[in-house]
Amino acid sequence: MPADAPAAGKLWGGRFTGGLDPIMTQYNESIYFDRVFYSQDIRGSVAYARANTKNGILTDHEFAEIERGFNVVLKEWQDDKFEIQPGVDEDIHTANERRLGEVIGKDIAGKLHTGRSRNDQVATDMRLWLRDQLDNLEEYLVDFLKVIAARAEKEIEHVMPGYTHLQRAQPIRWSHWMLMYGSFFATDLQRLRELRARVNKSPLGAGALAGNPFDIDRDAIAKELGFDGLIMNSLAAVADRDFVVETMQWGSMLMMHMSRWAEDLIIYSSGEFSYVKLADAYSTGSSLMPQKKNPDSLELLRGKSGRAFGQMTGLMMTVKGIPSTYNKDLQESVEPMLDHVKTVGDSLQIATGVLSTLAIQPQNMLKSLTPDMLATDLADYLVRKGVPFRETHHISGQVVALAEKESTPMDQLSFEQLQGVDKRFEKNVLEVFDYQKSVEMRSAKGGTSRSAVMEQIEAVKKALAGEQ
Amino acid sequence: MPADAPAAGKLWGGRFTGGLDPIMTQYNESIYFDRVFYSQDIRGSVAYARANTKNGILTDHEFAEIERGFNVVLKEWQDDKFEIQPGVDEDIHTANERRLGEVIGKDIAGKLHTGRSRNDQVATDMRLWLRDQLDNLEEYLVDFLKVIAARAEKEIEHVMPGYTHLQRAQPIRWSHWMLMYGSFFATDLQRLRELRARVNKSPLGAGALAGNPFDIDRDAIAKELGFDGLIMNSLAAVADRDFVVETMQWGSMLMMHMSRWAEDLIIYSSGEFSYVKLADAYSTGSSLMPQKKNPDSLELLRGKSGRAFGQMTGLMMTVKGIPSTYNKDLQESVEPMLDHVKTVGDSLQIATGVLSTLAIQPQNMLKSLTPDMLATDLADYLVRKGVPFRETHHISGQVVALAEKESTPMDQLSFEQLQGVDKRFEKNVLEVFDYQKSVEMRSAKGGTSRSAVMEQIEAVKKALAGEQ
Amino acid sequence: MPADAPAAGKLWGGRFTGGLDPIMTQYNESIYFDRVFYSQDIRGSVAYARANTKNGILTDHEFAEIERGFNVVLKEWQDDKFEIQPGVDEDIHTANERRLGEVIGKDIAGKLHTGRSRNDQVATDMRLWLRDQLDNLEEYLVDFLKVIAARAEKEIEHVMPGYTHLQRAQPIRWSHWMLMYGSFFATDLQRLRELRARVNKSPLGAGALAGNPFDIDRDAIAKELGFDGLIMNSLAAVADRDFVVETMQWGSMLMMHMSRWAEDLIIYSSGEFSYVKLADAYSTGSSLMPQKKNPDSLELLRGKSGRAFGQMTGLMMTVKGIPSTYNKDLQESVEPMLDHVKTVGDSLQIATGVLSTLAIQPQNMLKSLTPDMLATDLADYLVRKGVPFRETHHISGQVVALAEKESTPMDQLSFEQLQGVDKRFEKNVLEVFDYQKSVEMRSAKGGTSRSAVMEQIEAVKKALAGEQ
Amino acid sequence: MPADAPAAGKLWGGRFTGGLDPIMTQYNESIYFDRVFYSQDIRGSVAYARANTKNGILTDHEFAEIERGFNVVLKEWQDDKFEIQPGVDEDIHTANERRLGEVIGKDIAGKLHTGRSRNDQVATDMRLWLRDQLDNLEEYLVDFLKVIAARAEKEIEHVMPGYTHLQRAQPIRWSHWMLMYGSFFATDLQRLRELRARVNKSPLGAGALAGNPFDIDRDAIAKELGFDGLIMNSLAAVADRDFVVETMQWGSMLMMHMSRWAEDLIIYSSGEFSYVKLADAYSTGSSLMPQKKNPDSLELLRGKSGRAFGQMTGLMMTVKGIPSTYNKDLQESVEPMLDHVKTVGDSLQIATGVLSTLAIQPQNMLKSLTPDMLATDLADYLVRKGVPFRETHHISGQVVALAEKESTPMDQLSFEQLQGVDKRFEKNVLEVFDYQKSVEMRSAKGGTSRSAVMEQIEAVKKALAGEQ
Repeated sequence: MPADAPAAGKLWGGRFTGGLDPIMTQYNESIYFDRVFYSQDIRGSVAYARANTKNGILTDHEFAEIERGFNVVLKEWQDDKFEIQPGVDEDIHTANERRLGEVIGKDIAGKLHTGRSRNDQVATDMRLWLRDQLDNLEEYLVDFLKVIAARAEKEIEHVMPGYTHLQRAQPIRWSHWMLMYGSFFATDLQRLRELRARVNKSPLGAGALAGNPFDIDRDAIAKELGFDGLIMNSLAAVADRDFVVETMQWGSMLMMHMSRWAEDLIIYSSGEFSYVKLADAYSTGSSLMPQKKNPDSLELLRGKSGRAFGQMTGLMMTVKGIPSTYNKDLQESVEPMLDHVKTVGDSLQIATGVLSTLAIQPQNMLKSLTPDMLATDLADYLVRKGVPFRETHHISGQVVALAEKESTPMDQLSFEQLQGVDKRFEKNVLEVFDYQKSVEMRSAKGGTSRSAVMEQIEAVKKALAGEQ
Repeated sequence: MPADAPAAGKLWGGRFTGGLDPIMTQYNESIYFDRVFYSQDIRGSVAYARANTKNGILTDHEFAEIERGFNVVLKEWQDDKFEIQPGVDEDIHTANERRLGEVIGKDIAGKLHTGRSRNDQVATDMRLWLRDQLDNLEEYLVDFLKVIAARAEKEIEHVMPGYTHLQRAQPIRWSHWMLMYGSFFATDLQRLRELRARVNKSPLGAGALAGNPFDIDRDAIAKELGFDGLIMNSLAAVADRDFVVETMQWGSMLMMHMSRWAEDLIIYSSGEFSYVKLADAYSTGSSLMPQKKNPDSLELLRGKSGRAFGQMTGLMMTVKGIPSTYNKDLQESVEPMLDHVKTVGDSLQIATGVLSTLAIQPQNMLKSLTPDMLATDLADYLVRKGVPFRETHHISGQVVALAEKESTPMDQLSFEQLQGVDKRFEKNVLEVFDYQKSVEMRSAKGGTSRSAVMEQIEAVKKALAGEQ
Repeated sequence: MPADAPAAGKLWGGRFTGGLDPIMTQYNESIYFDRVFYSQDIRGSVAYARANTKNGILTDHEFAEIERGFNVVLKEWQDDKFEIQPGVDEDIHTANERRLGEVIGKDIAGKLHTGRSRNDQVATDMRLWLRDQLDNLEEYLVDFLKVIAARAEKEIEHVMPGYTHLQRAQPIRWSHWMLMYGSFFATDLQRLRELRARVNKSPLGAGALAGNPFDIDRDAIAKELGFDGLIMNSLAAVADRDFVVETMQWGSMLMMHMSRWAEDLIIYSSGEFSYVKLADAYSTGSSLMPQKKNPDSLELLRGKSGRAFGQMTGLMMTVKGIPSTYNKDLQESVEPMLDHVKTVGDSLQIATGVLSTLAIQPQNMLKSLTPDMLATDLADYLVRKGVPFRETHHISGQVVALAEKESTPMDQLSFEQLQGVDKRFEKNVLEVFDYQKSVEMRSAKGGTSRSAVMEQIEAVKKALAGEQ
Repeated sequence: MPADAPAAGKLWGGRFTGGLDPIMTQYNESIYFDRVFYSQDIRGSVAYARANTKNGILTDHEFAEIERGFNVVLKEWQDDKFEIQPGVDEDIHTANERRLGEVIGKDIAGKLHTGRSRNDQVATDMRLWLRDQLDNLEEYLVDFLKVIAARAEKEIEHVMPGYTHLQRAQPIRWSHWMLMYGSFFATDLQRLRELRARVNKSPLGAGALAGNPFDIDRDAIAKELGFDGLIMNSLAAVADRDFVVETMQWGSMLMMHMSRWAEDLIIYSSGEFSYVKLADAYSTGSSLMPQKKNPDSLELLRGKSGRAFGQMTGLMMTVKGIPSTYNKDLQESVEPMLDHVKTVGDSLQIATGVLSTLAIQPQNMLKSLTPDMLATDLADYLVRKGVPFRETHHISGQVVALAEKESTPMDQLSFEQLQGVDKRFEKNVLEVFDYQKSVEMRSAKGGTSRSAVMEQIEAVKKALAGEQ
């Protein structure tokens, strides 16, 4: 691990004499992932330079040159012609400034960084990038919710078993099932909108930590960059990666919902349930077993939920373990953020694709309904006759036991058998055994009756419009 | 592991014939921790009964009896006279209903649970309890922020080293340091208020999963219980523990801030820094070393940050791994929630106590300032003469190197030595070496000058009032 | 938060003048959970005193008194008569020593702690306690594995669908399924034995951090306490909570297996699968739905997997965030360790109970087998005729597609239909459609044939005996 | 999200009719990361083919062709000439087989996959790759430990303050500090060796899940590939990613140690401590502050500890949430594993570089020692005169308080002042105030005396040789 001759051109070059261990160079460099911020870095620099023109650090001419130069650099990135200089362009900030100096000369380019530090610069880049990404994620999420609402409306007539403990519990509408996830994801949308406001704050002008000594107009910079305000305290501005942590908390909560959704559908697409059938586009086969059609898309959604969570926990551990202001540990927030946002965005699009193309098999849903799922309705029948529920619950339990003992479905027990359990059963008790009637009974708000489901669909639509 | 004779009186008793493994009983029971919800459970039941009176399930007399009976039960809990029946009172819901039956008779008590399930009941209890706890936490957090603001105002004159990478960077005001955490904790306060609105939704009336079959007025129940609305979809209402997860995400973010705050103060109270001195009330000694005074309070704050985080990750893993609606796994949300809320609440109070009684040692802060911390000011001096910053940064670096080589503090270098580095230094360059001047230069918004710090104090006060 | 008058009798009492905030007292005290180490603490103290007798710190008489006194104290704990003095007995160490002083007088008791610190003392207590607990856990784990092996042997004839992606894949023996988990849990057993050796090391004699100044014989202490050696470096001895972290890594891995096992069984006990039926002792009912029988035990196993994991991640975050040697943060290792060990131990016993009493429904397993699960066998049929597998896979896929198109089970297709797909099918192709034959074909090591399964049972038995 | 025309050539192509969503293709494909297993995949295939020759599936000629073809393919990878076909080469297995078919013809290549599945194939590739990587990691870890041992031996004379609670506690040798981490990392080495044995097991021959139907000799394959045995149960063989989880548990434990080590050194390299000075090669400067020299390498080590941990928790969540055997979720184990191993490997090399080139400043260590750190020695002085330790602790505390009150260092108090505290102090008490003497007193095993430190160095050396 010998120290090589010093690499030339490092920003802090005036001082150091030793060289760099090549593994250290690579361990330290961020250019290979933070290059993704190239346009944000340039936009931020231009806004910063404009503000430094107002306070006399730069002349109008110098600013014009900087703006012109950055347009050249930006174009090079966009055209994939920017040449990164390995070992010199440590990060996107030094790369952009190095190139700017080549385009407009070092005399003017050398004035750009006045009063600024990479500490406030990188936080600005990250926030600008993330804000735009959150807007994309909002769009994907809204799309997904629209499919949920549309399908729920269209397929409202289908009844299926509702489960608790993965045991058949009571009949519900298939739409009601979809809207449960509508409820979860609509809340994710609400959280996303709150989160965006916290991400979209400007740290620029905080300097390395202590603030800007040239009375720069931080509000003007923030306005130009579309920020909703400042992270005021300059120490906080450079110390803070909460905006990434909170994004990941949000994203891993959303993916937790995605995992439950996928889990339900994986179970429903098993041969034993067979309620749904994935489109071929979202399934894959087996290299060994010719008959297999596997719900790979859903399994990946479920699996990537762990990945998104791991990024959140990893960053929280990193941030938790440091003292205040900027520490290099914070560089570890960038790569996980990039991957997290991609994971959530891809997953939302995959889920939308899956749901859009899913075939349901209503006949199998119906076939899976069993009369014992109406045991509560049977108890409720007696409740309506004034029998205390605790007693009716017990009576209905005895009917279930009788049906089991006699190996007769509950709805096939004779009226006499029912009366043998409790004399208060009258002839019309048999009307209880009707799944459609059962779901229509649950008409209180949020229930599984048609009208209650329609009201929920309206609620999802309102949530999309921000009314919740 | 033999199956004992069946325990009598289990709610679902009409059906089961086997007994319970004693370890299973204990593994399954929640009464020993969910008893903390006794009053919420009773309030919820009364509100539920009132709504069931309006729709004819209960008569006015029956309702009055239920209300009277629950007042008796409530008093027993409050007077610590409620006798839990081991092996029978599986959870707070069954315990309260069992006792109600003893007080008012089973005929009426047996009607209470009509159309309700423990699935919506426990979610209601938890939300009511948590909402009230969040109000307590808000109070503790506001108290803490008030101490930060008050101290920042009072001790604004003291200057200390500001650090990045734990290396002395630039002089800052001690108040500026406190306000960095003011910024973090004020954002926690904002998040808390958003979170509360999501916790404070009523699941009651969702039944086991499919909704209520007696047209119960869910909105009326919600209103009586002080909820801000409903979790509408009945499946979501029983499936959702997001309100606990989100509370824990919030709490572990707050504790992450607490850990960084504690870490700073632990370092500042080391013998080598000696900037602050904890009150004896928040320190402890050593059983072996007579001279030791350890910042135990701060270390516990830092350590409990991991505990709070672990509760969040544990619950996320649990919820992630289940299909939809209620699964018994969700019982695992209760104990961590109780401990999480206590941990955060205690920690906020400890932190307030620590900060209220902390002695600062401004003379040590001053002593720790070194002239090389003004190297940026030296570079800025030349910037004001029109030299590009990149060049001034290099020149200032050479001055730092010279001072090091000559073993002379930078501010003791002669004017000739400075001119030897760069001819553009003029006599007044020596005025740069003034820490007070340095902090006052950082007067842009959020900086460390007196006026900029005062503005931040106002911002914290506004945040307390909800204006942010 | 006023500082009260000082509580008398704190160990470090000679120095402090301030009092303690009552919340701080409670935040700081560990006696209410570390009292569980009472006997370990006493055993450790006696061994330590014996060693201090050999090097002349104590006389034989003093040692005899200490031993006598501790026998009294131990008995008080055992008889539940030890009276903790709130606010004085901060932890088990101070409580035991305080009481010892009352029993034998302070002159001798005051010599006990010579050269020792609570830093090495608490680490000793924890390791002794944990070592014994690991022995219990080993016993529970062995019991569980024995049930797996015994059931696998007894029920070897039953064939069920094997799943990948929760899609029916190939027929397997039910025993083969059980032995998959036998494989996972046997590896947990191996890991446990390796882990125990690392837990069972003595830190005693390390002092506060720098070592013992009275030449104490650390090896003799270790031997008396049944340790397998020393944590030699004294700084490491007090800094180390890796033994807890590693235990929790082990425990959360085991619980991860438990969760997968429970998940399989929950699915298999759903109405749609119905392969297994839990004993009543491990199920519970619904307070609303009379027909429900829920696999609560399995869901709790699955849910507690998250809890065990959260304890591990929480402690890792805590330990990760501290500098070296003892910091008070480490106190946060105790409560999670206690709960973790209990969670794993209870879970193993519950799982053993569940598996011991589980009823299988082989007829449902059989019914769930479908001819398309033999598509690989069909491809293999042609392989044996020399057709490249890739081609046979394709051909068999065409047969599957044909069966689907014709809505005819694959084994009901006519010989002509099969030949229509590929001429190389001969009459004996129909013999392929035999589930028993299919499982018997998989006779390579670790496969699902009877002999291969029997060999696996032997392997589990060997693992129990430590031969793996 | 329109379904495009079907991509040709998918392995399961005989059956599917729909196309693939392009996002799904990318979401599903693993070739862009699992290509790293190219050589393992080929070695595994050759071994598998050889075994299939022995049992008659392949002729000698066919095997020779397969071996020849794979040598061609391998060379293409090694020469970076292998052309991945996007959308066709879904993973490394299909890519290699596709290319083999082009080289030797599909008739023979099509026989390769007989009785095998990608399920056992990918597990084999991963284990082979990981085993080799663990060998690299062992080498890096051994190198690091050698530097620790060598430096500890060379710099044994230097004394520094030992800390608990980051408060100066007792004098220790600098070598003793290094050896604390030697103790932690030596245990990591022990764990690594145990772990390797579990990673290095062969799943090959398990098929998709149920085993191999052609009586393949799994032991022969395992032997050829250098495995230490089999994962026998075929279901476990394809279901198991514990070997990745356990590697990550190990790696995140190691990184936890690394973080504590880095934290200590970051503190020791602060201006206030100044005990160590990082080589320039492992430091970086500031873009704004010319005087800064930041310990970036150490901060990255500390920060990446979070990253490594996040990978572990993420994968555990993923694996925890699935039922048995192979589910596509398991694909999510690959990328984290690759990054985890790289992170740990790089970190070990960086740490070795840092420690190899670190300059210590023994004069600053000495300067930081204060007489109150000898308060325990003062108490011990009286212990040797027969005063009970509890009393001496109290007396010594009074001396500390007196020194503080008089603003006189403890060792400057007059003999009269000491006698004023306790008459039992004799003239020779002043000899206590000698730091070298203090460290030499701690000569019990594991202490900080020269001989005790030398013994620890020997212990580390033995650990390298596997004797622990």
